[in-house]
Amino acid sequence: MTDSVKAQAGVRQPAPRMAKPEVHAAAPALGWYTDEVLFGECWERSALCKRDRSLVTVAALITSCYTAQMTGHFGRALTNGVRPAEIAETITHLAFYAGWPCAMSAVAVMQQVFASNGVGLEQVSPTTSKDLPLSRPLTTQQARSVAPALEEFSQRVLEEDLWQRTELAPRDRSLVTIVCLIVQSQTEQLTEQLQRGLANGLTRVEIAETVTHLAFYAGWPRARAALPVLEAVFAQSGLA
Amino acid sequence: MTDSVKAQAGVRQPAPRMAKPEVHAAAPALGWYTDEVLFGECWERSALCKRDRSLVTVAALITSCYTAQMTGHFGRALTNGVRPAEIAETITHLAFYAGWPCAMSAVAVMQQVFASNGVGLEQVSPTTSKDLPLSRPLTTQQARSVAPALEEFSQRVLEEDLWQRTELAPRDRSLVTIVCLIVQSQTEQLTEQLQRGLANGLTRVEIAETVTHLAFYAGWPRARAALPVLEAVFAQSGLA
Amino acid sequence: MTDSVKAQAGVRQPAPRMAKPEVHAAAPALGWYTDEVLFGECWERSALCKRDRSLVTVAALITSCYTAQMTGHFGRALTNGVRPAEIAETITHLAFYAGWPCAMSAVAVMQQVFASNGVGLEQVSPTTSKDLPLSRPLTTQQARSVAPALEEFSQRVLEEDLWQRTELAPRDRSLVTIVCLIVQSQTEQLTEQLQRGLANGLTRVEIAETVTHLAFYAGWPRARAALPVLEAVFAQSGLA
Repeated sequence: MTDSVKAQAGVRQPAPRMAKPEVHAAAPALGWYTDEVLFGECWERSALCKRDRSLVTVAALITSCYTAQMTGHFGRALTNGVRPAEIAETITHLAFYAGWPCAMSAVAVMQQVFASNGVGLEQVSPTTSKDLPLSRPLTTQQARSVAPALEEFSQRVLEEDLWQRTELAPRDRSLVTIVCLIVQSQTEQLTEQLQRGLANGLTRVEIAETVTHLAFYAGWPRARAALPVLEAVFAQSGLA
Repeated sequence: MTDSVKAQAGVRQPAPRMAKPEVHAAAPALGWYTDEVLFGECWERSALCKRDRSLVTVAALITSCYTAQMTGHFGRALTNGVRPAEIAETITHLAFYAGWPCAMSAVAVMQQVFASNGVGLEQVSPTTSKDLPLSRPLTTQQARSVAPALEEFSQRVLEEDLWQRTELAPRDRSLVTIVCLIVQSQTEQLTEQLQRGLANGLTRVEIAETVTHLAFYAGWPRARAALPVLEAVFAQSGLA
Repeated sequence: MTDSVKAQAGVRQPAPRMAKPEVHAAAPALGWYTDEVLFGECWERSALCKRDRSLVTVAALITSCYTAQMTGHFGRALTNGVRPAEIAETITHLAFYAGWPCAMSAVAVMQQVFASNGVGLEQVSPTTSKDLPLSRPLTTQQARSVAPALEEFSQRVLEEDLWQRTELAPRDRSLVTIVCLIVQSQTEQLTEQLQRGLANGLTRVEIAETVTHLAFYAGWPRARAALPVLEAVFAQSGLA
């Protein structure tokens, strides 16, 4: 730690140890940043509640298919108040946004975490129909697309079915979609989803804090790449 | 399922179960989307044959290094008519486009799948020379590059060697390269490879359906990001 | 191998076998490219020393969270002269740039590699303070940001602490940051880090060769996407 940082050091007690002892042994600085900065500061900031931070973290891990970290963070999400059905629905939602392979890998970890936390599968309500949504004739707008089938799936399956499901609130659905786009650095599509998120009840402070949280979980560059998009959308929404 | 979707529901039999029982138990909606939409609809669309869908899926998994899903999809690829040598060559091709680590991880899974499917390694023809392609003096164009060695490798190893190998048809080589670029969201380089793909015999319908298929395997945002590029290339080729 | 390549074939002895026997058995061409081109040519080029190539490779693997390849390349890095403390610090540095999950996965592999190579953990100096760097009042510039907390973390933790740590030379810190940005295709942020890298002592030749090396480890498209940025930065620096 440099002098300029030491000069800022205060009287606070050391943060509780969050990083595993092996991390502290093999990479002490990483252990220290984990305890003091990531958990000691970032997770404690009130701009985003811990339940939301867990949802953001879980969505980031699913999007990147980082299965090794899912066990710990799925468990922490339960502790922080994310309901089992919400975790299952986040995985289902991200099947469409991060891709099927990520969702399938995440379900396997989720089951183990539920089992070891005594979460019965009856808590994941089987709210699904056995009716098959038949594909429909294309609308004019879809037909003009270069990939009309993709547009038809988007409208019928994502918009009119997935986004309407009640297992995850629209605000949370927007939150995990925004996380997915930031992790994938899909800055162009982020504009539309930020607008939708604001309409669904996310606040400007929550969105900015989500980006800050993601700096730690998806890396500084991906977080920074999102900032100009936030700025433009907030300005457009009269929130800047 | 919402009313608007229920209204579309028809008399068809439920699709066969494709998702594992655990997925149906822990995330019923995800199981349902997997059976009814991904396999019941998307895989059944005739715009791209199942052999090609398997090749596209395999290429997407290799590009993302999603080893957990490779076992199932390498096996399905064999069933759908992708030849063992084509799988090995797709991995070899993507070593250059997705990077060596992905290829090395994929080879390990491929070997296990071949073994458990009774595929002898004599089916992977050892068409490789022991001669070393010596590096060459740079051409004028390469020398002007900021990274002339990269350009020399591109020309000598990729263009004049890899792309000329007969284990994978040029059309299939273009297909897996296009998949790789869409999964990586390399939209700028996609233009050139789409033009090459059309020249190599891919049709506009097959390319658009590849993007639709990839929406499920790489996520909606990556598929959507490719659409403007398709549109521009098709328009330029007089195919729009 | 095509005739045009065969025509170039020379009298050199075949390169030593680097790819595993299983790779040679199941995907002979991939084995051949690995031995002859990747290790026989690329790694032997003098434009970047092997120690730096190892650092670049390790940084690429950490950024992509490719744990399967880390064992081999962490061991090779030790052989090539990267010090244990430098590996630990590269992981710590990339916790911030590639994200915490990648760093945590990498630490676990690093420990195993250190243990099996007889590297004692006393070689990873515990240069970390127990003092907590308190967050500070925002500067005017940070306060204008859409995510002021992110800017405050950037300045206080990354710039004034992480980048000042002596476990990794500024030049190496720049190198692994540049690798991370190329692997993530964050071309916009690459400009600033290339300028910083040149200021920290990286040469134009080393940077261009890093991109060439990354073509093999992160794929041709990600390497190619970086070239226009190199060109612009080198031109601006009067180095073109």
